[in-house]
Amino acid sequence: MRDAGIGVFDSGIGGLTVFKALRAALPPGERLLYLGDTARVPYGTKSAETVVRYALEGSRFLGRRGIKALVIACNTMSAVALEELRKDTEIPVVGVIGPGAEAACRATGRRVIGVIGTAATIKSGAYTRAIARHLPQARVVDRACPLFVPLAEEGWVDNEVARATAALYLQDFKSEGIDTLVLGCTHYPLLEGVIGEAVGPGVVLVDSARATASVVRARLLERGLLAEGPAPAGEDHFFVTDSSDRFREVGSRFLGGPLLRLEQVDIQD
Amino acid sequence: MRDAGIGVFDSGIGGLTVFKALRAALPPGERLLYLGDTARVPYGTKSAETVVRYALEGSRFLGRRGIKALVIACNTMSAVALEELRKDTEIPVVGVIGPGAEAACRATGRRVIGVIGTAATIKSGAYTRAIARHLPQARVVDRACPLFVPLAEEGWVDNEVARATAALYLQDFKSEGIDTLVLGCTHYPLLEGVIGEAVGPGVVLVDSARATASVVRARLLERGLLAEGPAPAGEDHFFVTDSSDRFREVGSRFLGGPLLRLEQVDIQD
Repeated sequence: MRDAGIGVFDSGIGGLTVFKALRAALPPGERLLYLGDTARVPYGTKSAETVVRYALEGSRFLGRRGIKALVIACNTMSAVALEELRKDTEIPVVGVIGPGAEAACRATGRRVIGVIGTAATIKSGAYTRAIARHLPQARVVDRACPLFVPLAEEGWVDNEVARATAALYLQDFKSEGIDTLVLGCTHYPLLEGVIGEAVGPGVVLVDSARATASVVRARLLERGLLAEGPAPAGEDHFFVTDSSDRFREVGSRFLGGPLLRLEQVDIQD
Repeated sequence: MRDAGIGVFDSGIGGLTVFKALRAALPPGERLLYLGDTARVPYGTKSAETVVRYALEGSRFLGRRGIKALVIACNTMSAVALEELRKDTEIPVVGVIGPGAEAACRATGRRVIGVIGTAATIKSGAYTRAIARHLPQARVVDRACPLFVPLAEEGWVDNEVARATAALYLQDFKSEGIDTLVLGCTHYPLLEGVIGEAVGPGVVLVDSARATASVVRARLLERGLLAEGPAPAGEDHFFVTDSSDRFREVGSRFLGGPLLRLEQVDIQD
């Protein structure tokens, strides 16, 4: 089992932020298998029932490749499908909500935490519940920001439209007195600049990618599953469900090198 | 065959504009079967190959219900999958690109036509080819406007963000001297106000829904397939692939009455 790979599952391309954090936190001998369901992205606008169905299909696809742990990089899937995914497999399944909530609880002083995410993530209340578990006294103010994903995808992260959108979505957070804001979607760190401007300089922005990577490392270590030995060169594997052209371009730019093993697949059983 | 229904296929909810135009143009005895692939929407950001695959699945799903004609309400599908859909069935298949292009050619005086649509629609060049067939002297200026769909879905059709987005996307159209602009996506008519402001008052905006409905009527008439007799009360049928709650709400508001027969289905063969 120690030699098996680690699955990283996202609805699309945004989960590469989690992939990158995992690469930085884990020993070089670990092999990562990334799956992006680019043919059905986005998940965040869809019903919980449909997201659970897609999540199980993707998890089983990676499971058939013999992984030792599964990381759910997508906030929406982590918010609405984590329990079902855990029931469906015996390997550890780590989502981004728990680690992100914990990081926010460590960061807040005033105990007023803002959370932004997709419609499905916010509707689930998953961050509010996770924060309450770690810091019951904390007050959570949350808001769905559906336009942030298409803005990030369009590359409009620092123009007039991005600033006006952030100002409209986040205007109430200021008066609520938050001191910490969870970026509850893998795309949102790309808009960090305009989001930071909108909420003001006193607010800490929490991105769950690094926190999630630490949890994955700890979980493997406690189970004696952390890889030893040298890096298996070029062994990371990327799977996508839509054409791979765009993923190849964006992914290699983002990861700073070519994606040697990239494959378009059909994940339906 | 005359008594069979007419299929109306869209990637989501936007095709209801075409549904409404068909209801207005066709005899009351016609029965419409609408399919919205809400579990996989949007199509416009995906590769042509994936859109074709989804289009065939949806078309076969409606085909199994015994329709006499198929209307492709989605511009993206009409742009990249129409030939494959026609090869796959014997009933008439009508897309929105041809009728929209023809309407634009009738409207233009200066013969400079603007076209806006999703990334997939614009990349396909389908409008440019269709316009060239009707009016070879016309010059076409086109541009993908990916943010218009999420703006319309968010209901931000008349605020500062919508205006700034329209201004950014459409600033070049003015200097190009267009006198006609094709709204090449079913969502765009919702943003008609800010789009009209951005291109100026001298430009005619063309929405293909009504033009498409006339073509469908003519096609049925010439084949002797137009329904006779009274309206079959409440016989229109709506199928969606994601949860039906949101569709029920938006759809009944848009059509001005309850959707009596609305069903969530799995369209994969």
